[in-house]
Amino acid sequence: MNIALLGFGTIGSGVYELINLNKGKFAGNFTDVESRKSSPVITKVLERDASKDLGDTVGKIVTHPSEILEDESIGLVIALMGGMDFEYEMIKECLRAGKHVVTANKAVISEYFQELLTLAEENGVVLRYEASVGGGIPIIGSLKEEMKINRVTEIKGILNGTTNFILSKMTEEGADFGDTLALAQSIGFAEADPTADVEGYDVSRKLSILSSMAYESIIRDEDVYKRGITDIRAADIEMIGSMGYVVKYLGHSILEEKNVYTTVEPVLFKEASIMSNVNSEFNIISITGDIIGELQFYGKGAGKDATANAVVGDVLYILNIVGEQNLPKPLRLNRKLNKMGTEVFKGKYYLRANLDDKEMLDQVLTAVETVAARKTVIVNDNQVYVVTNAIAANDFNKMAEKLKETVPECFYARIYE
Amino acid sequence: MNIALLGFGTIGSGVYELINLNKGKFAGNFTDVESRKSSPVITKVLERDASKDLGDTVGKIVTHPSEILEDESIGLVIALMGGMDFEYEMIKECLRAGKHVVTANKAVISEYFQELLTLAEENGVVLRYEASVGGGIPIIGSLKEEMKINRVTEIKGILNGTTNFILSKMTEEGADFGDTLALAQSIGFAEADPTADVEGYDVSRKLSILSSMAYESIIRDEDVYKRGITDIRAADIEMIGSMGYVVKYLGHSILEEKNVYTTVEPVLFKEASIMSNVNSEFNIISITGDIIGELQFYGKGAGKDATANAVVGDVLYILNIVGEQNLPKPLRLNRKLNKMGTEVFKGKYYLRANLDDKEMLDQVLTAVETVAARKTVIVNDNQVYVVTNAIAANDFNKMAEKLKETVPECFYARIYE
Repeated sequence: MNIALLGFGTIGSGVYELINLNKGKFAGNFTDVESRKSSPVITKVLERDASKDLGDTVGKIVTHPSEILEDESIGLVIALMGGMDFEYEMIKECLRAGKHVVTANKAVISEYFQELLTLAEENGVVLRYEASVGGGIPIIGSLKEEMKINRVTEIKGILNGTTNFILSKMTEEGADFGDTLALAQSIGFAEADPTADVEGYDVSRKLSILSSMAYESIIRDEDVYKRGITDIRAADIEMIGSMGYVVKYLGHSILEEKNVYTTVEPVLFKEASIMSNVNSEFNIISITGDIIGELQFYGKGAGKDATANAVVGDVLYILNIVGEQNLPKPLRLNRKLNKMGTEVFKGKYYLRANLDDKEMLDQVLTAVETVAARKTVIVNDNQVYVVTNAIAANDFNKMAEKLKETVPECFYARIYE
Repeated sequence: MNIALLGFGTIGSGVYELINLNKGKFAGNFTDVESRKSSPVITKVLERDASKDLGDTVGKIVTHPSEILEDESIGLVIALMGGMDFEYEMIKECLRAGKHVVTANKAVISEYFQELLTLAEENGVVLRYEASVGGGIPIIGSLKEEMKINRVTEIKGILNGTTNFILSKMTEEGADFGDTLALAQSIGFAEADPTADVEGYDVSRKLSILSSMAYESIIRDEDVYKRGITDIRAADIEMIGSMGYVVKYLGHSILEEKNVYTTVEPVLFKEASIMSNVNSEFNIISITGDIIGELQFYGKGAGKDATANAVVGDVLYILNIVGEQNLPKPLRLNRKLNKMGTEVFKGKYYLRANLDDKEMLDQVLTAVETVAARKTVIVNDNQVYVVTNAIAANDFNKMAEKLKETVPECFYARIYE
């Protein structure tokens, strides 16, 4: 079976090196099986950006989808172009053409999850997307395995390498958000437009994919409460550190009965915790099942080789089951669940606000008191720091969003319990 | 296909509940596949201890192996008796009889790994042993997956729930070793004879299984350097904590070229680290591959439900491939590697010795100076605490073993870098 690759970007070139250039042990999976004397290779690469370094792909570059879709020797397509509409259309067309598909595209999977699963099933092919969540961490496969025995009721994790790099760097160096974002951009750890990372869309998509799978119900990106990290300042890092905490950008979902609660927001963890010690581009994902208890998976959440590893793992999975009688049982995402807010997430809250005058201080303290008892208040230069007693996230968030209309420069985060 | 269970102890009863009593989602894996209208069940349980609570196994208990070995309706045997010789014989007989085998027996697997793999292959059946390492953590399957693409060069982990419970409890409460071991025994977290746990045999077996797989060469239990934790005292916990460290019992192996280095010993980790925050019965296992980088897997390393989950995962794996054309590629453990000592492990060392007199102090300091420069020395009541500069583990260990002949009450541990 031949393989086609859509997109020769960073991950695409990593996949090409693993499959075609014998970096790693890919070929070793085939050599001693009598019926597969030679290992499958990528025979066509769809790449329309002629300015890209196309490496050792001589003679394999094609620019029109039909050259892949209509090529019957190609049984498996690896979709790594990124973006939304074109990749979505290509994945659909490939599935319809009876080709297995492997993709890392979290935007496409989270947006069209059910449709693509159905299309794969109808056409007797397999759709795999391990690299769409957690880069090199084998979370999709592991979650599916545990779900064979467990009812999974909770998923949480540090799911975005860019923001974890930024927060880790700020914590390490006491630096400010803007400077650290600029640094991340300069070394290629953040994109020119960082919105998807720092405003939570990337985390939300990954959380929606994992939650949809785990709870067997479509949880859409739009269903997830999300709040960015752009308001955090060096002053917060310093105060949070002095309190013995570390700030992390957490995606978290919980299933209780028929209610799903989801949130993506900055959360404070005790320094002495596993989460606090997941740094830089590393990710961690925790899943909780009713039989297994909690499992956590840690690894590189981004990067060429780690992500390509996950993609090629999917390729091997498919090549291994080709010709077998029973395709794996398809996911069913048709449970009727209520998409709830953030009520279930509770904790003390940390809030810092910059003050123009005494009146603003009163506004902050009054607003906080409408939803929570203050436990600690520190006023320092032109800033106030408040830590509250434990309250529900939705109550605090609602209050804080309103407060920001009159006190624009503030940052707040729940303290994880 | 019917299933037989050998041994109705804690894990055995957990497995029985999952497979026969519909705790969890086991049956759900079969109901919608046309060819498997009913899910497989355990039809016979070998248990010769009549005093055991046999739960809801009415009519299924057998006491003679032949009742299982000669029963052609039984295609899969779950071996959970524990111990060595009888389980080893039973596993061999079952494989020879063409029955797939799932076991949690780390002693049998680590001792007879190659022989059992060969026997399974010769008889066209599958041997699975996920629960033999890390309890509920899916490490065996994950390691196999990563090995399809990666050369794995390092494995390290907290692999024993009993000692991690003891060390966590001592750290939490400043308690002494003897008292904490007694507590662990009283609540069933440690056995009456705790040797296998506290002297490192349990960790060593698990490390030898993972290392054999990862490096494709039989690494025997005897090849692993191991040192127990029985010398640790409350005074160590206090001093180590004041230095900003936490003591953990680490199994660690490294492959460099054709040399394998292995060690099981107490190691100090910075408080702000992932390892330091793996507490009580939880385990963590880190594997490093040349493509994927480092992956870590965290979960319950022991306990009825978590371990039964791993066992039943293996059962499902086998039931899923029964009848397929290609059995999974068997592991080959025939690489020729040099089994080295602990030279590759380097670090500063912490040492505490109880002193009878001034002469003993001189003995300690002189001994340490033969292998390392002292960085810090604290003499406090009748104890001396030394921290050295960084040196090779084998040099320090050799010196310390000799020192113990004249200064018997001492504890030492490498500081992880």
